[in-house]
Amino acid sequence: MTLRKSITLLVLVLQPLLFSAPLHAEEGMWLPDTVRSLPLETMRSQGFALRPEDIYDPRAASLTDAVVIVGGGTGEFVSPEGLLLTNHHVAFDAIVAASTPEHDFAQNGFLAKTRAEEIPAKNYRAQITRSFTDVTSEVMSAVREDMPANERGRAILAKSDEIARAAEKGHEKEGLQCRVVEMLSGMNYVLYTEQVLKDVRIVFAPPKSIGYFGGDPDNFEWPRHTGDFTFLRAYTGPDGSPAEYSENNVPYRPKRYLPISMAGYQEGDFVMAMGYPGATYRYRESYSIDFREHVLYPYQIELLKSQIQLLSEAGKRDPALALKLSSQVFSLSNALKSMEGDLKGLRRSALLERKRVEEAKLSARIGQDPAWKAKYGDLLPRFAQLYQDLNSYFLPQSAIGELLGASDLLQVMSLAYRRAADREKPAEQRSPELSDRAIENVRKNLEETMKDRTPNVERMLLEQALERADRLPSGQKIQAVERRIGGRTGEERRKGETDLARQLFEDSRFNKVENVDGLFAMSLRQVDEITDPAMRFAADLAREAEPLGKRSQAFNGAVSKLRPIYIRAMSEARKDLLYPDANRTLRFTWGNVRGYRPRDAVLYGYKTSLKGVIDKATGQEPFDVPARLKELSAARDFGNYLDPTILDVPVAFIATTDITGGNSGSPMMNGKGELIGIVFDGNYEGLGSDYVFNINTSRTISVDIRYVLFVTDKFAGASNLLRELEIRNAPAAASAVSSPR
Amino acid sequence: MTLRKSITLLVLVLQPLLFSAPLHAEEGMWLPDTVRSLPLETMRSQGFALRPEDIYDPRAASLTDAVVIVGGGTGEFVSPEGLLLTNHHVAFDAIVAASTPEHDFAQNGFLAKTRAEEIPAKNYRAQITRSFTDVTSEVMSAVREDMPANERGRAILAKSDEIARAAEKGHEKEGLQCRVVEMLSGMNYVLYTEQVLKDVRIVFAPPKSIGYFGGDPDNFEWPRHTGDFTFLRAYTGPDGSPAEYSENNVPYRPKRYLPISMAGYQEGDFVMAMGYPGATYRYRESYSIDFREHVLYPYQIELLKSQIQLLSEAGKRDPALALKLSSQVFSLSNALKSMEGDLKGLRRSALLERKRVEEAKLSARIGQDPAWKAKYGDLLPRFAQLYQDLNSYFLPQSAIGELLGASDLLQVMSLAYRRAADREKPAEQRSPELSDRAIENVRKNLEETMKDRTPNVERMLLEQALERADRLPSGQKIQAVERRIGGRTGEERRKGETDLARQLFEDSRFNKVENVDGLFAMSLRQVDEITDPAMRFAADLAREAEPLGKRSQAFNGAVSKLRPIYIRAMSEARKDLLYPDANRTLRFTWGNVRGYRPRDAVLYGYKTSLKGVIDKATGQEPFDVPARLKELSAARDFGNYLDPTILDVPVAFIATTDITGGNSGSPMMNGKGELIGIVFDGNYEGLGSDYVFNINTSRTISVDIRYVLFVTDKFAGASNLLRELEIRNAPAAASAVSSPR
Repeated sequence: MTLRKSITLLVLVLQPLLFSAPLHAEEGMWLPDTVRSLPLETMRSQGFALRPEDIYDPRAASLTDAVVIVGGGTGEFVSPEGLLLTNHHVAFDAIVAASTPEHDFAQNGFLAKTRAEEIPAKNYRAQITRSFTDVTSEVMSAVREDMPANERGRAILAKSDEIARAAEKGHEKEGLQCRVVEMLSGMNYVLYTEQVLKDVRIVFAPPKSIGYFGGDPDNFEWPRHTGDFTFLRAYTGPDGSPAEYSENNVPYRPKRYLPISMAGYQEGDFVMAMGYPGATYRYRESYSIDFREHVLYPYQIELLKSQIQLLSEAGKRDPALALKLSSQVFSLSNALKSMEGDLKGLRRSALLERKRVEEAKLSARIGQDPAWKAKYGDLLPRFAQLYQDLNSYFLPQSAIGELLGASDLLQVMSLAYRRAADREKPAEQRSPELSDRAIENVRKNLEETMKDRTPNVERMLLEQALERADRLPSGQKIQAVERRIGGRTGEERRKGETDLARQLFEDSRFNKVENVDGLFAMSLRQVDEITDPAMRFAADLAREAEPLGKRSQAFNGAVSKLRPIYIRAMSEARKDLLYPDANRTLRFTWGNVRGYRPRDAVLYGYKTSLKGVIDKATGQEPFDVPARLKELSAARDFGNYLDPTILDVPVAFIATTDITGGNSGSPMMNGKGELIGIVFDGNYEGLGSDYVFNINTSRTISVDIRYVLFVTDKFAGASNLLRELEIRNAPAAASAVSSPR
Repeated sequence: MTLRKSITLLVLVLQPLLFSAPLHAEEGMWLPDTVRSLPLETMRSQGFALRPEDIYDPRAASLTDAVVIVGGGTGEFVSPEGLLLTNHHVAFDAIVAASTPEHDFAQNGFLAKTRAEEIPAKNYRAQITRSFTDVTSEVMSAVREDMPANERGRAILAKSDEIARAAEKGHEKEGLQCRVVEMLSGMNYVLYTEQVLKDVRIVFAPPKSIGYFGGDPDNFEWPRHTGDFTFLRAYTGPDGSPAEYSENNVPYRPKRYLPISMAGYQEGDFVMAMGYPGATYRYRESYSIDFREHVLYPYQIELLKSQIQLLSEAGKRDPALALKLSSQVFSLSNALKSMEGDLKGLRRSALLERKRVEEAKLSARIGQDPAWKAKYGDLLPRFAQLYQDLNSYFLPQSAIGELLGASDLLQVMSLAYRRAADREKPAEQRSPELSDRAIENVRKNLEETMKDRTPNVERMLLEQALERADRLPSGQKIQAVERRIGGRTGEERRKGETDLARQLFEDSRFNKVENVDGLFAMSLRQVDEITDPAMRFAADLAREAEPLGKRSQAFNGAVSKLRPIYIRAMSEARKDLLYPDANRTLRFTWGNVRGYRPRDAVLYGYKTSLKGVIDKATGQEPFDVPARLKELSAARDFGNYLDPTILDVPVAFIATTDITGGNSGSPMMNGKGELIGIVFDGNYEGLGSDYVFNINTSRTISVDIRYVLFVTDKFAGASNLLRELEIRNAPAAASAVSSPR
């Protein structure tokens, strides 16, 4: 497998033609191999002191080797012995999973005083990008111009899978996994080779009152005072290759880890971050913006609100359940605030109107130029038609998703039904997502999934989903529901919903994992013969979802064909580089430390302080400050971690770097590639930047590495950890107690 | 009557002895005749260009003649024909009173196109300070050292009244009124001579969406975007002397009016304001702070919350009633937010602890020095004892106040009872507040008071007050209530409260004004013979309140004797001038235009803009922006009112001047005494400054005079008004539409 070919195709340098919309120099989530095409002179003048190959070099160790996918975010190696830094909120699921009512690490924090005390981070993996290479022509070889849209999509998926499986061959021992990723809405396809470390452990997590300080009210807000960090450690088998957890495992020795700088930063300083952003939509057609602004977000926001309310209520009467649900409530709340912000950002930026104006210009150009008419004539009408169709089935399809999603059991049952039905089809018509490999993955986790169920919560969620299904427009109702409790209204309907939800979760043989697992071995006829009401409901829903899924596939296939054309048409004016939308692959972003003006007569500074933490203290969660932290602040016992410009410990700072969800935990570095902070959030005023980046208001929020070390050292006394780190530019000498201001 | 003696006694220059707590140069609400003792050189270096006698000169016209008490605030003359500027919220009661459902001036604003169209501002007076003179020795001549505390208080009141009445004699025609005012908690007494103009009319009020933009959520907040101004006009009889409203009246010709400067201001510029601040407590003993922080504010905050909720609910089902109650709900909400802020400010500033430390130092000094022991030995123990007593009757006394205050009828009835009882006493024991003169004032407004009643709301308020009375500590219950519905609990008690409240407001002969008025002519026996349940309840409450009132009088007498001693003892360290606490007399304050840092990493700028108004627009009250204003902003049709530093119309600005409630509507002037804005609020972070001024966070919020003129001119087209004003420094030429940024 050759990994040396870099993917210059992604750097589109197109002729200026129609529209002139220059990007800001700093905007962009760049693939690591495109750093050399960035405005290096500008960057160097601001403090960038590395060569592009220091960022990514498939032939040698580079920063890329230090930055990993972990949990739902990003992490970075900070010691030669596999020590990882990420966010507290990224590691939180693992911390909750390791907690018991007696040892509530989620609440009180956790510190392993020795390696032996480090505890497994359940279900956490550390995934390192080893290399990536363009495979567009290979993928596109599977596509014929005349293919129907849904076949086209399936062909691309199948070919991508084939390429990935072939690339993995012979590398199993190294723990290498491959995947082909779509870039720029299908303009390119890139093969990624990644190493997955399977034994990750929790080393040090601060208490919730530091790691989650400010909680939901402060989420997305600046100024921020959260010590949002956790130390993890990756382990391998004794031979250095990836292995599942074992006592015999040894710390992983990364090819590269990040040194830490205590020198701080000033407003305007060059900074850069690397990480795995999840999804952006920077090149979307107006129809997509319209759909998201007026259909998708309103739908999802309402759904999230009702689910959050339900789960919060459910936890109120049961502290153990509340603990179990807390992480879920947090991520739903996080998603809600994010979507509300996105929606607000979309409205505020008037992006829809701007896109429509751009498309109107494109239409005019098409009308005037026969060559353009030939190339792009049916582009916009096709989009219009596709979205009209989407609007006709989006709600019922989502409702079926809600009904099945209410319960892990229904979910698994519907999958088993679909698997059985799929195997009746000729091989070439089968769905890749129901392949042996995919099903194996589900079955592997089945025991855990079934054990983790909370049937009471599932019942309530299902009841809620049934109630919401009742509010669908007539003509879009769910038949599987109507056949069971249709024709009733008001109180009677509500009672029908309650009864149905209860009936489905009554004791049955499918409370046993082996019986559920057995479903996957059955033929369609066997599955159809099962009379269990949950199985029948799941099967009915799956059957009803199938044609909608086909239309959805056709939609995806069609837009995946149209979008590259659209981007090309719309971009023919741009002189700048294009960067692909975020898709959970490794990206590089650079910018400057900088405050901003959130609204009239208000200026936000670029850095917060320990004093600000104390000022926010109310004694009540999430603004409770540990007594020890108050003491350190009052005694000005700052150790080495005082920032001389504020005469206090710095806590968090903001920069103009371009990030999104998935970047949580990313290393924020100075121009030398030294760690100065950990990315943990974007700001509220910057929400909407998934669609359009605004340098005036979009900011990355990072916890200052000096606060991380201050908490680790002075608050928690974890000097063992500090000795592992490579700390540069520490003040020559610092008195334990600095003189007061 | 000689008015020339100025009151230098108020400027205390005491020997430094104990404590060192220098004031900020800018702090202080100064009597106008003390301006000459202020740091004039510093002020001049910043832009102050007047002589002290330009501020106040009893022999000639001065700024003092341009600044009046109007409504609950302050106003200033801005034209030779009696045109007054004040706040929209100061004039709001008059605007509401002039409104009908058909002509809702409160909602839509009001503009008189001609003088004839100007409408009376019901119950509004304009009160001008003509002169003031120290009368301390005269007042104190009525006091003997060995008088009991309550007698002492009464003697001071009686003597003060005697001095005032004597001073008025012979000046009735000029409409001069006199009053003696206590300064520095009784260290001095000052005789004020004031002219009261009785015919005030509404000239131009902007719509609520400008004058009250931001409403309650923005109240006390900076940055602010409220066009909080209204034009009034004062009238006199044809001979120029004060007269009640008549068609024949003519515009008042002020001795002095303020010119307007369009030159604007920059950060750091000198500014000054004059006005009638209501009350501050800057020299209070720790016991008073303790009482306010832990008893008075918690009590009042709870009371205000329940009353606001009740009145808001009451208005929901009845738009006409809602309109009637809106002003009351606003002032209650305003008081609530103010008290909550004060309480927060008290806690944040830890003033109680600081006062206690100061008093502990005083105690130590007293312990060491026999001379001090003689002078101040019983000072602090006396305070301790007085407040202990106050705490034993404050709640029941307040509860009786609530019960009577629920209803204007009960209020008047209890007054009639007290009047009748008072007349049974020997003349020298009678209460000054029940004098013929005081009762006449009440009877004069009786018809109006009775007509304005809302019996349903009174009934609900009384029911609430009864319910609150039930929660009093045992031993402090109200006997007038317990005798009627005592011994019941829970639902039964609630029913008793409902029944009692209903019974008191059933149709009775006291729904007729003449019957109520007749009460004041009755003897105590006659009053006692009335069987009407409301009359009996009011009489019982008044009787029960009497001994509490006596204790309260004794408390006031005692603290009025102690506080001057306390201030002297505590101040013997200060080199600075003392200024008397605010007491609704005319004050001068100076400072600088300046932003501030409300919290960690946040800087508030000193000026807001029209763009900020548009940015806040939600379409929903109180953030609805008139379409016309949006158009002017979008078209950048700013007329002469563009601020070149922000390329927009300036809306509001902040300065370090020292103000409090009552200053609303005060002129904010530049160093030349030209009007640059109208004070309309203090900021939230500055609440608590009634107790201790903090130059870092206390700010005065003013509406920019250019926004006032922009709204008057470009928005409302009231060019007739503009011609009356003396506008200086207008830009030489301005295109109607400025170039966009």
